Amino acid sequence: MADTRPETAGRPIRIAIVGVGKIARDQHLPALAANPAYRLVAAASHSGRVDGVPNFGTIEEMLAAMPEIEAVSLCMPPQVRYEAARAAIAANKHVFLEKPPGATVSEVEHLKALATRKGVSLFASWHSRYAPAVEAARTFLAGTRIRSAAINWKEDVRRWHPNQEWIWQPGGLGVFDPGINALSIATHILPEMFITQATLDFPANRDAPVAAHIRFRTADGTPIGMELDWLQTGPQSWDVLADTDAGSMVLSGGGARLAIDGRTVHEEPEAEYPMLYRRFAELVRTGKSDVDLAPLRHVADAFMLGKRSTVAAFYD
Amino acid sequence: MADTRPETAGRPIRIAIVGVGKIARDQHLPALAANPAYRLVAAASHSGRVDGVPNFGTIEEMLAAMPEIEAVSLCMPPQVRYEAARAAIAANKHVFLEKPPGATVSEVEHLKALATRKGVSLFASWHSRYAPAVEAARTFLAGTRIRSAAINWKEDVRRWHPNQEWIWQPGGLGVFDPGINALSIATHILPEMFITQATLDFPANRDAPVAAHIRFRTADGTPIGMELDWLQTGPQSWDVLADTDAGSMVLSGGGARLAIDGRTVHEEPEAEYPMLYRRFAELVRTGKSDVDLAPLRHVADAFMLGKRSTVAAFYD
Repeated sequence: MADTRPETAGRPIRIAIVGVGKIARDQHLPALAANPAYRLVAAASHSGRVDGVPNFGTIEEMLAAMPEIEAVSLCMPPQVRYEAARAAIAANKHVFLEKPPGATVSEVEHLKALATRKGVSLFASWHSRYAPAVEAARTFLAGTRIRSAAINWKEDVRRWHPNQEWIWQPGGLGVFDPGINALSIATHILPEMFITQATLDFPANRDAPVAAHIRFRTADGTPIGMELDWLQTGPQSWDVLADTDAGSMVLSGGGARLAIDGRTVHEEPEAEYPMLYRRFAELVRTGKSDVDLAPLRHVADAFMLGKRSTVAAFYD
Repeated sequence: MADTRPETAGRPIRIAIVGVGKIARDQHLPALAANPAYRLVAAASHSGRVDGVPNFGTIEEMLAAMPEIEAVSLCMPPQVRYEAARAAIAANKHVFLEKPPGATVSEVEHLKALATRKGVSLFASWHSRYAPAVEAARTFLAGTRIRSAAINWKEDVRRWHPNQEWIWQPGGLGVFDPGINALSIATHILPEMFITQATLDFPANRDAPVAAHIRFRTADGTPIGMELDWLQTGPQSWDVLADTDAGSMVLSGGGARLAIDGRTVHEEPEAEYPMLYRRFAELVRTGKSDVDLAPLRHVADAFMLGKRSTVAAFYD
């Protein structure tokens, strides 16, 4: 197998983008264009188009027309991601999944098994884990005792997800769409944790929550609170805070800056998607997969265990 | 380790019951009394009592007072099961978990890891899997092609769960409390499947659903429908049906009877809890665990992906 893998052969991975929406244009296409490990050879989308490559209406048409495709990056909404991933894996393609990796935990477990069986690389990407200060925060926390922690993710949905209808539909996750980014960081830097209590606020006219108030605990009882809010105007908060024996930690800006006792110890410009694509190339080259479901599992747990409250209707 | 395990030494396992409610009295205590592989030595419960053994208010008091306990069977509501399981595992006890094994998928994953670390046996029991005709159904389905399947679990909550308040609270799962029994059978006899669409009906005055309408599909696209209803009066339905190349299969009575094309091919009286305790003794004796989370994962997926609809208030 190894010598047929593109990276081993020293030539770019022939990759296609599926789902040409906001995230593909904002992040995936620029990251691919800047990385010589890839050559973008096609795109498939119901609505969007990519200039300079063949465009198809569906992934099935694309895979049938262009057998030279080696990998696909799936950027469509999670509700329809499984079908595309399954088609790609069945056709022996390596698969990059935008977050969240699927609409259910079970379907991603299944994709994982399929990819293993087919010997292709599957990458459930969590872009926030590649924020610049995340590894420094992880190292800091590993060396101290955590007394409590708080995850605060408060942003303005009208600014970041204007008129994205899918996000309010069942399976679109609502405020957990950004919230799962917080969870992807928290599950990477904090000890193993799980939800003990949750309240999810649903706008009267929507099928997904606009806010959530969650209590986690770690195995040894350390309390971790999480506040998700999608109606935050003014300054936006994407912070993980921890009160520790080595001082008060604030990881802010979605993982961009780390401060201990008010002193910034790590800050650099973000390069999340470039790093994701570097990671994916490495997975393809080494024949590995990387599918950590902990963030999605917590979201499912929050929906299962959470109390629902109805709040004011939301209009974009 | 092996020679300290009670079964290897040929003497009964000293077991304690925690949570002395309806299920403990109806099922666990009779099953234990009838099985010479166990000796019931204590009970812990906020409210209930077991005659003839020392009774404690909490598991912590019980474990502290009676170090000779080797195993515990946890029969309290799922919302508080983790804490007790963790205390028991930390004290090197083997643990039998009533279904569902916890309030979140994540916490049970965590218990699994803890049990492995401690070298004790953890059993996430799914009693319906031990219904008499389940294995015959599994064998039948493994030898044919399934065109479609349906899971119908329709019972009268007032008859089976009278005034069980916890079941309507967040984490109590509502109609998924019996529905997870159906899922424990379905995930055992049908190919791997996952939810593509769900609607959950919540009574206006309750935090858990009274009905659910779910569509699954298998990896190769076979459709599986699931209907859960907790307001079924008259005849009760606990059926898994499959349309197959080898005929029409009906597994009814919660797994008690198997019929192919209308002809009963397997029927015997149920002995689910006796079989569960036989299985647990075997796990303890062989130093193994059995923790299949697929049924609980599907429930979490249904809550995450499901559309909520509000229906008439429910009063016991």
